[in-house]
Amino acid sequence: MKTEDELDQLIESIREPDGAAYERARQHNDNLCKPLGSLGRLEDIYLRLSAIFPQGIPDFKKAVVVFAGDNGICCEGVSQNPQDTTYKVCLNILAGRSGLGRIASFYNCRVDLEDIAVLKDVASHTRFKVLAGTKNAMVGPAMTRQEALACLFAGCHKTRELIREGYNLIGAGEMGTGNTTTSAALISWVTGLAPEATTGFGSGITLAARDHKVKVIEKALAVNAPYRDPLDALAKLGGGDIAAMVGCYLTCAAHGLPFVLDGVISMAALALAVKLAPKVLAYAFSSHQSEEVGARAVIKELGLKPPFDLGMRLGEGAGAPLAMNLMECAVFTISGMASFRDVAVNKEDYIDIREETR
Amino acid sequence: MKTEDELDQLIESIREPDGAAYERARQHNDNLCKPLGSLGRLEDIYLRLSAIFPQGIPDFKKAVVVFAGDNGICCEGVSQNPQDTTYKVCLNILAGRSGLGRIASFYNCRVDLEDIAVLKDVASHTRFKVLAGTKNAMVGPAMTRQEALACLFAGCHKTRELIREGYNLIGAGEMGTGNTTTSAALISWVTGLAPEATTGFGSGITLAARDHKVKVIEKALAVNAPYRDPLDALAKLGGGDIAAMVGCYLTCAAHGLPFVLDGVISMAALALAVKLAPKVLAYAFSSHQSEEVGARAVIKELGLKPPFDLGMRLGEGAGAPLAMNLMECAVFTISGMASFRDVAVNKEDYIDIREETR
Repeated sequence: MKTEDELDQLIESIREPDGAAYERARQHNDNLCKPLGSLGRLEDIYLRLSAIFPQGIPDFKKAVVVFAGDNGICCEGVSQNPQDTTYKVCLNILAGRSGLGRIASFYNCRVDLEDIAVLKDVASHTRFKVLAGTKNAMVGPAMTRQEALACLFAGCHKTRELIREGYNLIGAGEMGTGNTTTSAALISWVTGLAPEATTGFGSGITLAARDHKVKVIEKALAVNAPYRDPLDALAKLGGGDIAAMVGCYLTCAAHGLPFVLDGVISMAALALAVKLAPKVLAYAFSSHQSEEVGARAVIKELGLKPPFDLGMRLGEGAGAPLAMNLMECAVFTISGMASFRDVAVNKEDYIDIREETR
Repeated sequence: MKTEDELDQLIESIREPDGAAYERARQHNDNLCKPLGSLGRLEDIYLRLSAIFPQGIPDFKKAVVVFAGDNGICCEGVSQNPQDTTYKVCLNILAGRSGLGRIASFYNCRVDLEDIAVLKDVASHTRFKVLAGTKNAMVGPAMTRQEALACLFAGCHKTRELIREGYNLIGAGEMGTGNTTTSAALISWVTGLAPEATTGFGSGITLAARDHKVKVIEKALAVNAPYRDPLDALAKLGGGDIAAMVGCYLTCAAHGLPFVLDGVISMAALALAVKLAPKVLAYAFSSHQSEEVGARAVIKELGLKPPFDLGMRLGEGAGAPLAMNLMECAVFTISGMASFRDVAVNKEDYIDIREETR
């Protein structure tokens, strides 16, 4: 049984990336033959990775791990999908023929799936399983504090395994019918925004169903109040999948490794992780500007700048391999360009028009 | 000597993509096991490519051709860079160490460079050269109508060569100090927007220099008025590089092949090409939401939806290989996903929340 002390130790072990390495990378980048700042986000990515890997940015070994879990709040009719969709789509992800599977395969990114809290066991993928579905958060806590902690540490253990196997660029995906509802509740709790401003259409619901979803989330937030701390919110509002994602992010950051985001559920997990450990943010790399309003709320709140604008809302972690590949491209590009001196062009002929804000 | 009849023939040979193939692709896509429309722009890319290639989307052989040319308007102090930057950066592009070169290399995309109108000959790359720099458009026509036509057909010939060699996904890049000024003038002419709304900071100028740049463009537009037709505007406002890009786009479309855009200069060329031949637009694939205000004006005017939001403003065609790779990913992903039937999930459990607008 994991104790809260272990969570505190994990959080305290997270270090800031290396400021001196960032500065060295900035000097390298600003001496490349191009208008200053003209590679935009590709430069940001390169600089941030340089600070995370002060000994040099390594070749990346990439993995997305899908944490799966059923959400008790599903019985309130917040999704158009029957709850066993979770189980069926897990099998499809394992078969490699989901959206995530294809995108990851295209970019040579491994996909793993772990059943953290699915109602029906996903055979051979239950090593880290904590419970068979969370309770309905609209009528009371979705999980006990101990269950939430166990789900979080399930994510930690899985992530540590991947790191031991040499994976150094990791994304957390998810599968769980109803988990956009859970995510909206958590995002409202972290940001203080009303559910009206954090609740989207998930996998597809009508306008009327979306209004109902907002009311369910309002009720869940009220029923479970007050909240002692982020772990209390995570337990009561739930999401075994989301708790495991939080554990994954904390573990990557604690190991000094970047991690890659996807849509609204990963944004809920990130918001929670940053609430627990603000330094986590320095290791987070966003992928796309999700169509989900809750994702956009977190993106704005945390000042993320997603490099893709694809109108995506698939989930699973499908956006992560896209960003991983772009990160590889940014490193390849900026580490190999000619300098002003190489091209015999004067750096002074370029005016620096970059904003000072990040 | 190319005649205007040949341009008319080229324009008339452009066909609309295949509507029936688009519909078949839409049916395939809408039967895949995912929330309807949840892959966003990746789906749009797949559907549009399906219509362009009704016999099946081929594997892509990718090339970006950089058309280089000096702009006479440069002597009005619209750029901070000395004019010989054009020549020097051409050599750097040929050495493969420019931003474009590195990004293209990462994505296995060929890069060619053709000197269309550079002041100093770019040795071994002058097969399609038309002139040594355009005249200053602020005091009179940058090119004669015949010169503009020759530059446009230079782009056609180069593009036909690539197509003969099996290239089927082509982007046009450019190098030419001062060509964001030329682009802003052309974009103002096509869109009717005042230069204030189409003029950006190019490779980097001060606020005061940008105000001066606006005035230069206003004067160029007034001095050369009236304009008989798009070719007249292209000749008078200039850009041998831009004229060649227009030729490239028309040629791709006439051969039923997609082409890929980059930043503000490619947007000026696209705007001109669409003004000459509206059907060209169906073959255009945007890459990134450029930082340049003129690019954004064309993106809005033509209803483009760039998949990347990178704050890039490098030029050269550097954004094109990014989009080409994403197009390959879209095809790989959507052609290989499992259907609702495969996963035993009911399509009827998903509500279609897509906007009807494209």
